[in-house]
Amino acid sequence: MASVAIIYFSGSGHTQQMAEAVADGARQVSGTTVQVLRVTGEQISNGRWQDDAVMETLNQADAIVFGSPTYMGGVAAQFKAFLDAGSAAWFSQQWKDKLAGGFTHSSSPSGDKQGTLIYLSIYAAQQGMVWIGPSDLPSAYFGKDDGVNRLGSFLGVMGQSPLKTDGSDAEVDSGDRLTAEKYGYRLAEAAHRWSKQLVAS
Amino acid sequence: MASVAIIYFSGSGHTQQMAEAVADGARQVSGTTVQVLRVTGEQISNGRWQDDAVMETLNQADAIVFGSPTYMGGVAAQFKAFLDAGSAAWFSQQWKDKLAGGFTHSSSPSGDKQGTLIYLSIYAAQQGMVWIGPSDLPSAYFGKDDGVNRLGSFLGVMGQSPLKTDGSDAEVDSGDRLTAEKYGYRLAEAAHRWSKQLVAS
Amino acid sequence: MASVAIIYFSGSGHTQQMAEAVADGARQVSGTTVQVLRVTGEQISNGRWQDDAVMETLNQADAIVFGSPTYMGGVAAQFKAFLDAGSAAWFSQQWKDKLAGGFTHSSSPSGDKQGTLIYLSIYAAQQGMVWIGPSDLPSAYFGKDDGVNRLGSFLGVMGQSPLKTDGSDAEVDSGDRLTAEKYGYRLAEAAHRWSKQLVAS
Amino acid sequence: MASVAIIYFSGSGHTQQMAEAVADGARQVSGTTVQVLRVTGEQISNGRWQDDAVMETLNQADAIVFGSPTYMGGVAAQFKAFLDAGSAAWFSQQWKDKLAGGFTHSSSPSGDKQGTLIYLSIYAAQQGMVWIGPSDLPSAYFGKDDGVNRLGSFLGVMGQSPLKTDGSDAEVDSGDRLTAEKYGYRLAEAAHRWSKQLVAS
Repeated sequence: MASVAIIYFSGSGHTQQMAEAVADGARQVSGTTVQVLRVTGEQISNGRWQDDAVMETLNQADAIVFGSPTYMGGVAAQFKAFLDAGSAAWFSQQWKDKLAGGFTHSSSPSGDKQGTLIYLSIYAAQQGMVWIGPSDLPSAYFGKDDGVNRLGSFLGVMGQSPLKTDGSDAEVDSGDRLTAEKYGYRLAEAAHRWSKQLVAS
Repeated sequence: MASVAIIYFSGSGHTQQMAEAVADGARQVSGTTVQVLRVTGEQISNGRWQDDAVMETLNQADAIVFGSPTYMGGVAAQFKAFLDAGSAAWFSQQWKDKLAGGFTHSSSPSGDKQGTLIYLSIYAAQQGMVWIGPSDLPSAYFGKDDGVNRLGSFLGVMGQSPLKTDGSDAEVDSGDRLTAEKYGYRLAEAAHRWSKQLVAS
Repeated sequence: MASVAIIYFSGSGHTQQMAEAVADGARQVSGTTVQVLRVTGEQISNGRWQDDAVMETLNQADAIVFGSPTYMGGVAAQFKAFLDAGSAAWFSQQWKDKLAGGFTHSSSPSGDKQGTLIYLSIYAAQQGMVWIGPSDLPSAYFGKDDGVNRLGSFLGVMGQSPLKTDGSDAEVDSGDRLTAEKYGYRLAEAAHRWSKQLVAS
Repeated sequence: MASVAIIYFSGSGHTQQMAEAVADGARQVSGTTVQVLRVTGEQISNGRWQDDAVMETLNQADAIVFGSPTYMGGVAAQFKAFLDAGSAAWFSQQWKDKLAGGFTHSSSPSGDKQGTLIYLSIYAAQQGMVWIGPSDLPSAYFGKDDGVNRLGSFLGVMGQSPLKTDGSDAEVDSGDRLTAEKYGYRLAEAAHRWSKQLVAS
């Protein structure tokens, strides 16, 4: 058994869809418990985020996947408030040796999203976590048109959807969704490989 | 005349002291209006920061200097909430061509503070701002012991003070304080050079 | 008068086309001297790059624009060899207060190109230079289809062209080319604004 | 059995000492094969690095640790030439799922070294590798004076030594050396944990 927790903030709904895609992929690895957790602005009081139940779930997970829109060039403030609350785990290095991964979304193909993934990987390193990237080369290099890693991102998964001003529902590009799903699968597999060893050694 | 606005968040008081040092330096350039603005957690509701008077002050400034502790590997969530509120200025590129700078503080010499300065410079670029770094080589290279740029930071100014658990007051290293002061002077000079030209050309 | 020097490395020819576009834009600002300089592998001996004439040109410029493919997640080694040779200028801060900008190209829309631009801005800060980004929001936000900043990059300009395996000539996307041209114009204007003041003050 | 390969470039000898410390730590984990490989400028011709024997060693390793001075704000050009030669492994994702880590050295406490570690982690992600940070909090937080992570670095290990102009030998700070040694131990342990599982599953 291995457990994967996906925690994210979503403003327009796109990052939520990516979180669900990561979860779908992780669930395809048998013996994997998957939990999807959403950070909301309502959980923030005086600039500080708190939710003990969510933190307890994360404390128990083998892998934690972090997701946030790229907003003004970085993680959304609401998600940063959650990450800052992780300082409790930091002082005791409670998340040490858990696996980590990350994903982000914005309205432009590049959209300064790499900076968000860089930050998430720094955060994971501060927590003593082990960073797993998606590892898929753009499938277009091999003549495939399934859109896997169409944006060319390596630290984590990027999604991109055009700005919408007509109030219609968020819809993530099918290639980006598939990339996120494969990432969830990879993370779950890695969690098994990494955590079983605790028993075997 | 040129105006420099310094906006910061401070948890333990160190970043506040650095903000004041930057302000002191800027005031040494005659004809400079300096304003020091503090972001607080109380200004954040449902994860969003709002303060129209502060934003109006920033809209009028020639240079904006951003300061935040490096907390969990990045800007504090409270400061990110303020930065996210800058999206209003972003859509209209209202801060375009203003000068920008940044400073940060943490308890370790490196302390992943460079990542915070990288992020602040990305944010400034998103806003169409012009980034001015401190430009001081470590003075120790030249046999001086005044502590200027003792940490070796180039995108912006770093301060470092040991963790305190005895409840005593925050106190920033004198070298870091001097580095911040010189940075304020440099930013104010640059603001004059850059903004006078608007009249002269 | 103001002078803009554009220095780049290009493997497949795409970055060269972007360099020329930046130059074209800079030339549209009257009174601007523009020089385009290419770094080649042949200038590197025992891992070190040297070309005194090129360095002298850069030492005289008001603005230096740096361009490199994003190769294996960063600037190409050949371009880094040139940048490392800039340590001579660094020790004397000879490039201090010059304007700086950057551009990069790769085969994917994101392609980890932001990391390259981050590095170039760190390098410029080490040299005491002032960083100017392109400042164009994606024109698609405003219903335009000219492709300006279609990739969503803010620290510098990104170009993207699909991998070619048929040996045909490099061809940069017309939107990326226009973005680079506008960037050259902006940099030249800024060089005038910033350098005239030296006389006026 | 697990194998750890450490590959580095060193100009002044400090990074070499850090490489040896990482190796010493890795050797303390029984059943670990450790190889230390040095990149030199002489291996670079026309800007390109080549050494087939070194590449074959890396292809066989379970973990690869990358080390470079931070020079002009990033990895030394000579080391980048080696990294660029890794594009052959990249196209076939030959290093996929190997463990990766990194270390760097400069003459200032911060010295923009975090940017170097960020780049190395991006490179590792491009190669599909799994990034392991050192995970040690600064031991000074706990009242220890052994210097472990005295600089406060989390993505990888940093070393710092003052500029020397008297021609004396390089000598890395004892705390930084110990930090590097513990990192080598951690990486070797992780290589066992991660690679044994290949047999067990």
